[in-house]
Amino acid sequence: MNKNSSNIMALAPNTSNKRETVCIFGTGDFGRALGHKMIQSGYSVVFGSRSAQTSGLIPKDAEVLSHTEAAQKAAIIIIAIQRQHYNFLTQLAEILHGKVLVDVSNNLKINQYPESNAEYLAQLVPGAKVVKAFNTVSAWALQSGTLDASRQVLVCGDDKEAKQMVMDIVRALGLTPLDKGSLLAAQEIENYPLQLFPMWKFPILLSLGLVTFFFFYCLIRDVIYPYVYEKKDFSFFIAISIPNRICPILALILLALVYLPGVLAAIIQLYRGTKYRRFPDWLDKWMLCRKQLGLVALAFASLHVLYTLVIPIRSYVRWRISSQTISQALNNGTEPLNTTNAWLSDSYLSLGILGFFLFVLLGITSLPSVSNNVNWREFRFVQSKLGYLTLILCTAHALVYGRNRFLNPSSYRWYLPNAYMLSLIVPCIVLVVKFVLTFPCLDKPLTQIRQGWERKPQYSE
Amino acid sequence: MNKNSSNIMALAPNTSNKRETVCIFGTGDFGRALGHKMIQSGYSVVFGSRSAQTSGLIPKDAEVLSHTEAAQKAAIIIIAIQRQHYNFLTQLAEILHGKVLVDVSNNLKINQYPESNAEYLAQLVPGAKVVKAFNTVSAWALQSGTLDASRQVLVCGDDKEAKQMVMDIVRALGLTPLDKGSLLAAQEIENYPLQLFPMWKFPILLSLGLVTFFFFYCLIRDVIYPYVYEKKDFSFFIAISIPNRICPILALILLALVYLPGVLAAIIQLYRGTKYRRFPDWLDKWMLCRKQLGLVALAFASLHVLYTLVIPIRSYVRWRISSQTISQALNNGTEPLNTTNAWLSDSYLSLGILGFFLFVLLGITSLPSVSNNVNWREFRFVQSKLGYLTLILCTAHALVYGRNRFLNPSSYRWYLPNAYMLSLIVPCIVLVVKFVLTFPCLDKPLTQIRQGWERKPQYSE
Amino acid sequence: MNKNSSNIMALAPNTSNKRETVCIFGTGDFGRALGHKMIQSGYSVVFGSRSAQTSGLIPKDAEVLSHTEAAQKAAIIIIAIQRQHYNFLTQLAEILHGKVLVDVSNNLKINQYPESNAEYLAQLVPGAKVVKAFNTVSAWALQSGTLDASRQVLVCGDDKEAKQMVMDIVRALGLTPLDKGSLLAAQEIENYPLQLFPMWKFPILLSLGLVTFFFFYCLIRDVIYPYVYEKKDFSFFIAISIPNRICPILALILLALVYLPGVLAAIIQLYRGTKYRRFPDWLDKWMLCRKQLGLVALAFASLHVLYTLVIPIRSYVRWRISSQTISQALNNGTEPLNTTNAWLSDSYLSLGILGFFLFVLLGITSLPSVSNNVNWREFRFVQSKLGYLTLILCTAHALVYGRNRFLNPSSYRWYLPNAYMLSLIVPCIVLVVKFVLTFPCLDKPLTQIRQGWERKPQYSE
Repeated sequence: MNKNSSNIMALAPNTSNKRETVCIFGTGDFGRALGHKMIQSGYSVVFGSRSAQTSGLIPKDAEVLSHTEAAQKAAIIIIAIQRQHYNFLTQLAEILHGKVLVDVSNNLKINQYPESNAEYLAQLVPGAKVVKAFNTVSAWALQSGTLDASRQVLVCGDDKEAKQMVMDIVRALGLTPLDKGSLLAAQEIENYPLQLFPMWKFPILLSLGLVTFFFFYCLIRDVIYPYVYEKKDFSFFIAISIPNRICPILALILLALVYLPGVLAAIIQLYRGTKYRRFPDWLDKWMLCRKQLGLVALAFASLHVLYTLVIPIRSYVRWRISSQTISQALNNGTEPLNTTNAWLSDSYLSLGILGFFLFVLLGITSLPSVSNNVNWREFRFVQSKLGYLTLILCTAHALVYGRNRFLNPSSYRWYLPNAYMLSLIVPCIVLVVKFVLTFPCLDKPLTQIRQGWERKPQYSE
Repeated sequence: MNKNSSNIMALAPNTSNKRETVCIFGTGDFGRALGHKMIQSGYSVVFGSRSAQTSGLIPKDAEVLSHTEAAQKAAIIIIAIQRQHYNFLTQLAEILHGKVLVDVSNNLKINQYPESNAEYLAQLVPGAKVVKAFNTVSAWALQSGTLDASRQVLVCGDDKEAKQMVMDIVRALGLTPLDKGSLLAAQEIENYPLQLFPMWKFPILLSLGLVTFFFFYCLIRDVIYPYVYEKKDFSFFIAISIPNRICPILALILLALVYLPGVLAAIIQLYRGTKYRRFPDWLDKWMLCRKQLGLVALAFASLHVLYTLVIPIRSYVRWRISSQTISQALNNGTEPLNTTNAWLSDSYLSLGILGFFLFVLLGITSLPSVSNNVNWREFRFVQSKLGYLTLILCTAHALVYGRNRFLNPSSYRWYLPNAYMLSLIVPCIVLVVKFVLTFPCLDKPLTQIRQGWERKPQYSE
Repeated sequence: MNKNSSNIMALAPNTSNKRETVCIFGTGDFGRALGHKMIQSGYSVVFGSRSAQTSGLIPKDAEVLSHTEAAQKAAIIIIAIQRQHYNFLTQLAEILHGKVLVDVSNNLKINQYPESNAEYLAQLVPGAKVVKAFNTVSAWALQSGTLDASRQVLVCGDDKEAKQMVMDIVRALGLTPLDKGSLLAAQEIENYPLQLFPMWKFPILLSLGLVTFFFFYCLIRDVIYPYVYEKKDFSFFIAISIPNRICPILALILLALVYLPGVLAAIIQLYRGTKYRRFPDWLDKWMLCRKQLGLVALAFASLHVLYTLVIPIRSYVRWRISSQTISQALNNGTEPLNTTNAWLSDSYLSLGILGFFLFVLLGITSLPSVSNNVNWREFRFVQSKLGYLTLILCTAHALVYGRNRFLNPSSYRWYLPNAYMLSLIVPCIVLVVKFVLTFPCLDKPLTQIRQGWERKPQYSE
């Protein structure tokens, strides 16, 4: 669906050299890749280098001069040098005065230096207009023209004119500039390409831990127990049956963990009688990764749906059903329809379907392009009202699935209850506490507190 | 998938106070929340208040002064007061002259006042540069740092410089400004947070009505009728069987209703011989909610798919199949394969799968981020060509499902036809009329009319 | 989910005529539609026409004057004339001096003229500030208010002020301007609305070819062969069984074709010892449509999932299972559970489920709004690491499905191997070569080459 017209442009560049001259300091990989791309897009490019000799690696249409000469030829100078070598620029301060310096550098670690590279550059050459840009695109992508990933170039800088000039170059290269404001944003922009899903770490580690626990729990109950007592080999349960136990359990627990911090926050606020004190740090962090927790829960729920729907295709299930039918046939009789069973089976399936449907809806509204088109009131409605409805439906799905097994001693093996019973603890707690919080005697003060009212107004943070 | 790097920033703010001073009039909940957030982001904040005493609720790094004193300290003044109290600002007109006033107010109802609050403010203080902003974010979200919903801040104003200054603040708070143009857009921006899915009301009410009707229709035919005549208790059909009848019926009817207004519009244009007259109001409104109608239809189609795929897991279905097998076994015989039946069963399933697949494709292309990457010609191709193909496949799916039951008297109970027959009326009408409209004798004049030709060109709107 | 508040605006326009006067040259369909919309949005509109007589088609609130008179009334003149009639504007050069001319024209073919219409206009009237805009919206959509498709208006121009004025009009009409930079971008903007999924052509043609081949291949093996040798009529296999063979084969082949060019590129770079030479043209084009190839593969995989999940509902399958059960019952015996079979059946299903799950994840991250929120490192992680894992899982799924049939002569009919064996060739090659490339003796030099190192550094492109 996404059109890549600018990709084509990259291959069949507009060669009419109408654009201005740009100077690049540094003939390393990124400098050369950027130079290549700029020449393709119609710019004249001058490289500034210590040894002003034409290296074989330099794009053939580019000139290579000394730093001083190169800087004089252009209004915009791209500093494609590593931060540790910035010092020499102080000697060029006079020539660089009034020029636009584009800092494209990246660090190796998040927050490696106290100030961002761009701010450091601005301190070294106070007379120049420093703009941070291009650090979020890769040399390899520029070179090969295969910019599959984000075409966004984050740009920041204190001088509006300079920023505008850089954003025009970004557009000319077929990329999309995104103005992030003043040079203060440089630190954030420099940290950005070093991140690897920072908000996903906790949800993924948590679910890995839970998966491991429940895997061995189910292995003991469903494979080792029947092997020990009945000498039956159910080791193939590892492929589908056990995953299909773990997935719904994790989906339900993680979904409940999405709504637990909100309930805890309400209790803390009621207890403190004010909303003007920070929550404990762990609660803050937990609240910030609720979306990710919910999406991981949705992933497990989707796997559960797929694992459930292939049940009738499994050769073990076909064998079991056919054995039952044959043994009934050999006994010359058909059992009558058990209406209660039909009710329970159909309603637990129906609850599951509706719960999953709402869950997918929640997932769709969390897509950035959808949630950007939704106002705060609508977002609250979907994430809170529909979210709790999803939790209620999924919990009911698990409860009806359990039916009367809760009190049945045969469902305890080695004193271990069925795994899904464990999964019901957190969701039930969340739903009960949430239900209690809707009582007027608690809901009214809570609403007041959230509107800014304080029980002891003399309290000052 | 969405990175929340700015969320982290909210918790570990940049405390180097390099930014300018901002004044906030009003120490209510929203003013304080905004002040908090601004201090976290490095701004100096001065509150303007009637009683210039430090209240316990004010963020501790902020100063509280009288309105006059506070206004003198900053170039930007955020008016966090309710519209009814704006009057007193006329007395400060002299001090506010040339300042940027940011109107953050919201109303309680859509179009509550004849002019927007921001325009009213601009009238009261003619010398100031009024900018509308921040009304779309919630105090609670600002306070807690959990901005899960849209980070977009809609901004409008007549003065470009002033707007730019406000947009820089928005960016500094980790939010995304969206320039909506001149102050005329303020009314729209003020109405925005009050909406609750306005375009979805009609499709959802319509489908609720249809769901209720078809629920009772199927209840009578499938549960009450067999109970009365055969004393059979099929009440458990309410859980899956009846929803699985209602969902496909609604999906088909709503999908046809997406294409019906286009067909009606064509007929009206052909009849009038011009495209330069407005359609009747109801048709205009109907055309505007076609996307929502289609998405609701897709939701019902998805539920239908899930309800259909769990059929072999249902305990009732397992019982029925096993009974049939046993009775055949007891009669010592296997029925031969009925090839016609196999053909019909397979082709109706296949038509349904292909129809649903195209339907999901239509749904994906209606995601804002996808449709923004598609040009008008491509969008028309997908929504019109693929859309009609979907309708044809889904209608064929229902027709083949029906097979020869249409004329079979046993499928009428209490003179009520099978519910899916009713669902075929609208789609068949749409497809027949659309087919007739492709005849050259109608298609040619229609194309001409749509290109601006008029049958009676003297007609003037 | 998408709110269409501006749609409502279109129907209930702000009639307070506060906005400036805009002149439109040309009273054709698009000019009139734009005029209508502008009047609705509060602009005064003056049409410039050769015959200054009020035509019945002109919006009734608009004035029609001669070109000269009309141009004098406004600072912005929209040129809604076809390119071949631009010549007469040279006579008006004096009046148009300093005015903003908006070129809204489109061509009939991509790259119809050597220079874009907007650049041609700028050459004809050198004193005017030319801005390209509005060519991506349709007259019909403007007229009817039903802007379902993209609301984006691509804008470019050399004069910043002029561009800003045009972008303000775009916003006032309820559309979203997108600044594409200088007038050089006009060619790209003019080609944009003429495209019909250019990047999708190759993947779709390729898969159509493969579908045709495998359809006849399977028809011969699965329908004609049993008919010739066993006189069995399996023609109904065309509806589900054969599609369900073709879909997984195409999904697997196309997925492997997504990763093949990357492997080829690595081999070429290793052989050449440099990354500074362009790849052959066919490889470049192939790399650019990898995303589309992958999405087509995902579409086939989704169809395969749906076709597989309806298997137990098919009347043929029910008949076959029931026949087997009956024949076992008549032989008075139940076969014991074959644990190996249970293992194989469960593990091939499980591999398929996990592969499909990761595949859908890859598809979601390729949505524009998601991939824009992901940095380069994360995108590489998802598309490369998760992508190869998907390929491995899907290939394993097909291998386990095949089990020991590979060497079984009965699975060859007329010397034709089972179709899925053919599908395994490309993925196995890709995986083996990729595995070889991870050996340190190859991986190390490749990494160096990609960081800019050259084996023969004297080489100059």
